[in-house]
Amino acid sequence: MNAGLLADFSRITPALNVITDHERLRPFETDAFISHRAVPMCAILPEDETQVAAILASCSARGVPVVTRGAGTGISGGAIPSEDGVLLVLTRMNHIGKVDHQARTATVGPGVRNLAVSDAAAAHNLFYAPDPSSQLICSIGGNVAENSGGVHCLKYGLTTHNVLQVRLVLSGGESMTLGSRALDAAGYDLMAVVTGSEGMLGLVTEVVVKLTPVPEHVETLLAAFPSVTDAANAVGRIIGAGVVPAALEMMDKMVIEACEKFMSAGFPLDAEALLLIELDGVREEVADQLVRVEQVLNDCHAQEIRRAKSDAEREKLWKARKGAFAALATIRPDYYTIDGTIPRRCLPDVLARYTQLAEEYRMLVANVFHAGDGNLHPCIFYDATVPGEMERSEELGGKMLEICVEVGGTITGEHGVGVEKLRQMCVQFREAELATFHAIKAAFDPAGILNPGKGVPSLKRCAEWGGMHVREGKMPRADIPRF
Amino acid sequence: MNAGLLADFSRITPALNVITDHERLRPFETDAFISHRAVPMCAILPEDETQVAAILASCSARGVPVVTRGAGTGISGGAIPSEDGVLLVLTRMNHIGKVDHQARTATVGPGVRNLAVSDAAAAHNLFYAPDPSSQLICSIGGNVAENSGGVHCLKYGLTTHNVLQVRLVLSGGESMTLGSRALDAAGYDLMAVVTGSEGMLGLVTEVVVKLTPVPEHVETLLAAFPSVTDAANAVGRIIGAGVVPAALEMMDKMVIEACEKFMSAGFPLDAEALLLIELDGVREEVADQLVRVEQVLNDCHAQEIRRAKSDAEREKLWKARKGAFAALATIRPDYYTIDGTIPRRCLPDVLARYTQLAEEYRMLVANVFHAGDGNLHPCIFYDATVPGEMERSEELGGKMLEICVEVGGTITGEHGVGVEKLRQMCVQFREAELATFHAIKAAFDPAGILNPGKGVPSLKRCAEWGGMHVREGKMPRADIPRF
Repeated sequence: MNAGLLADFSRITPALNVITDHERLRPFETDAFISHRAVPMCAILPEDETQVAAILASCSARGVPVVTRGAGTGISGGAIPSEDGVLLVLTRMNHIGKVDHQARTATVGPGVRNLAVSDAAAAHNLFYAPDPSSQLICSIGGNVAENSGGVHCLKYGLTTHNVLQVRLVLSGGESMTLGSRALDAAGYDLMAVVTGSEGMLGLVTEVVVKLTPVPEHVETLLAAFPSVTDAANAVGRIIGAGVVPAALEMMDKMVIEACEKFMSAGFPLDAEALLLIELDGVREEVADQLVRVEQVLNDCHAQEIRRAKSDAEREKLWKARKGAFAALATIRPDYYTIDGTIPRRCLPDVLARYTQLAEEYRMLVANVFHAGDGNLHPCIFYDATVPGEMERSEELGGKMLEICVEVGGTITGEHGVGVEKLRQMCVQFREAELATFHAIKAAFDPAGILNPGKGVPSLKRCAEWGGMHVREGKMPRADIPRF
Repeated sequence: MNAGLLADFSRITPALNVITDHERLRPFETDAFISHRAVPMCAILPEDETQVAAILASCSARGVPVVTRGAGTGISGGAIPSEDGVLLVLTRMNHIGKVDHQARTATVGPGVRNLAVSDAAAAHNLFYAPDPSSQLICSIGGNVAENSGGVHCLKYGLTTHNVLQVRLVLSGGESMTLGSRALDAAGYDLMAVVTGSEGMLGLVTEVVVKLTPVPEHVETLLAAFPSVTDAANAVGRIIGAGVVPAALEMMDKMVIEACEKFMSAGFPLDAEALLLIELDGVREEVADQLVRVEQVLNDCHAQEIRRAKSDAEREKLWKARKGAFAALATIRPDYYTIDGTIPRRCLPDVLARYTQLAEEYRMLVANVFHAGDGNLHPCIFYDATVPGEMERSEELGGKMLEICVEVGGTITGEHGVGVEKLRQMCVQFREAELATFHAIKAAFDPAGILNPGKGVPSLKRCAEWGGMHVREGKMPRADIPRF
């Protein structure tokens, strides 16, 4: 451990919680992308922006890398520490400030849990809309870093659509306010760049989020289909019928069975695919949408349509959906969750190609995902104790992401790039685009100390992995980089 | 005119329309910010992205400034040419590509008129939501450059919320795709940075816009008030009551009288302020909102509430509102329109301060604006033939913008910074923020040839204007830069 750095930290405040003991650092060695690990030189838990700024100024002056971490629920490895660096843990910056019901905003620290924001706003009949499955524990700072989504993002948008203003500390220690509490902000839209930038541009120390009125009425439908294709067709046709559901989720037979075994949600076991559809709004509006959606479901050969008759039944369905990833863990020892997004109309075709690929690799793949968003989450099962299985799952996952790029989609919907998808960034983007990303990084963090090696691969690494690739359907299949 | 440049242009394509004749260049000397003018070295009307890229590569190699112009309706001077530069006029790139009703998108060239997008989508019962008053003639490229708003942006968002993907050509001639047709895009959100960047980062050659379903039912209300304060209070309370109107516009007595004289809209002449409120959605939802809004209006002392009984009556009201700026031109020879945005709750206070300031300056000021957005458009009347009047109007306008900054708002809602608000940028932003803007500019346009002198003032100019200023209510009133 760097003695000068430690001396700086103790000058910042005697009460600063600095962890340097290896055993106490071990819990921080990875986030939820557990296949990669590294123990940092030290971990620090600052309590306010002033401390964050002083820490960054010190690290910057000494050229020490800084990785930022919230609750550590990210699954692309964005918060994996640098061995020669400092890990900034922002969980103590969990102050919930003013909830302004007329402006419909809340001012919160980065360490505030996602669900705690909605809890704080509930008295005003408002809620914070983006709802990742991990919302009970994941924190707002991490949500901003990853531009997180969730099941209700189809109607209410991603994190970037629900954040109005952030306080940002640059790597040199300068603080600034990005965005505004008003409708627009002058200058380049730096808040949008920082949202989803995975801790590589600066540290977010305060967030003003937008709150949404709790809808007057909610209906939840479960629709069972005899084939994945029928269910996938229904997704596009529901939106085409002029309905934007609050949520539109899909799960295939393997997920249905796992959830049923794990949680007895009452899912029909004879179905090949399920859709969970939530409609919300004014009572009459929801009633009108219900008629249109049921018509589409029948046209698309739904074998069963079930409407939740009570809040309890509705909550049971969503609990099963949000618990799907836990349920899947009962199938095989390990699984790898992919996160790609495609234009909605490509759903039937891409899902069929995934099935074919899984057969080629002779691996089990389950699908549970935000169908309305076109945000896919295939889960590839493997056993890490069988040599080569993990590598094959990563190879298959990489191919699945490349199919997303090929049909005009992207390699991430809500989980970020982190260390997981660096190779696919070379597939997604051309040289000029990656060069612009590096220039943006340099504009915010000229010393390059923030989260090094994450998010955007160097042009050299892309070249090593097999050259740059052309997207928009023109990708030469033969020379895609492989794990 | 640079001979090498001309030779390059004729190599790009013999059919390229290059204007070098001074008289033919005169129509391009300004946009709608007519107090500033400059005749460019030449104007070019390219027809596709390939030509744009080749022109930029040539200008870049020769270090020649490039200003881009669409319909020229911008009112902050963002499209005023450089005398030693090339003006790229994109009106010929007005191709409307595919309208995809299932994905609810349209692919259009930058020269396509705003209203033409909605016209093309009408067959699918869809429309393009952002609707600046100039929507009949202003073009999508300019809307992206300025992040344009309009009366319906309260519910449907600004341009940045309605654009999914753009093609961008950098100053060196490299093309790239920003954003995606899917819900999210990997990498830093460069599309958001480019939106509202006033032609300073790159040239947008194609835009994929989001289309919105035409609402089933619309109601338009006119509410008259005995005071501006009552009307302003009603604005915040309507939103506070859980209603997001499609539009929520305010006008004061001077505007009411001018509109009535000019267009006989049937506005009540005994009112001190009017609100125009539009509610849209499913019929029952609108009916429910109507009850809640009428309650608020009565609570806020509305002296008259009138509901448009037919489409014709509704259109007449909106025609009068959208024609307000033309009507105001009948009051005095010239007027200067300000564009600042404030948190909604500050409306009553800020409007009172504007009245006081106008009295101090002994100038007439009329107010017609997007009240629901907190986006103010005070119009300051003057006579350009009276020495010093224009300068005083600019000084007063500057003070009004600084009040916006002081209460936590911004110096632009939808009109951009251009050349008009360079001084106020020094009030809005601190040195670290402006330095980051310059670094972003350099990341996209290292040679600095795109729209030089617009949008972001140099730190040196801010210093000359009286030093950097602190925002968030801590601005020292004594040393604000003045025109």
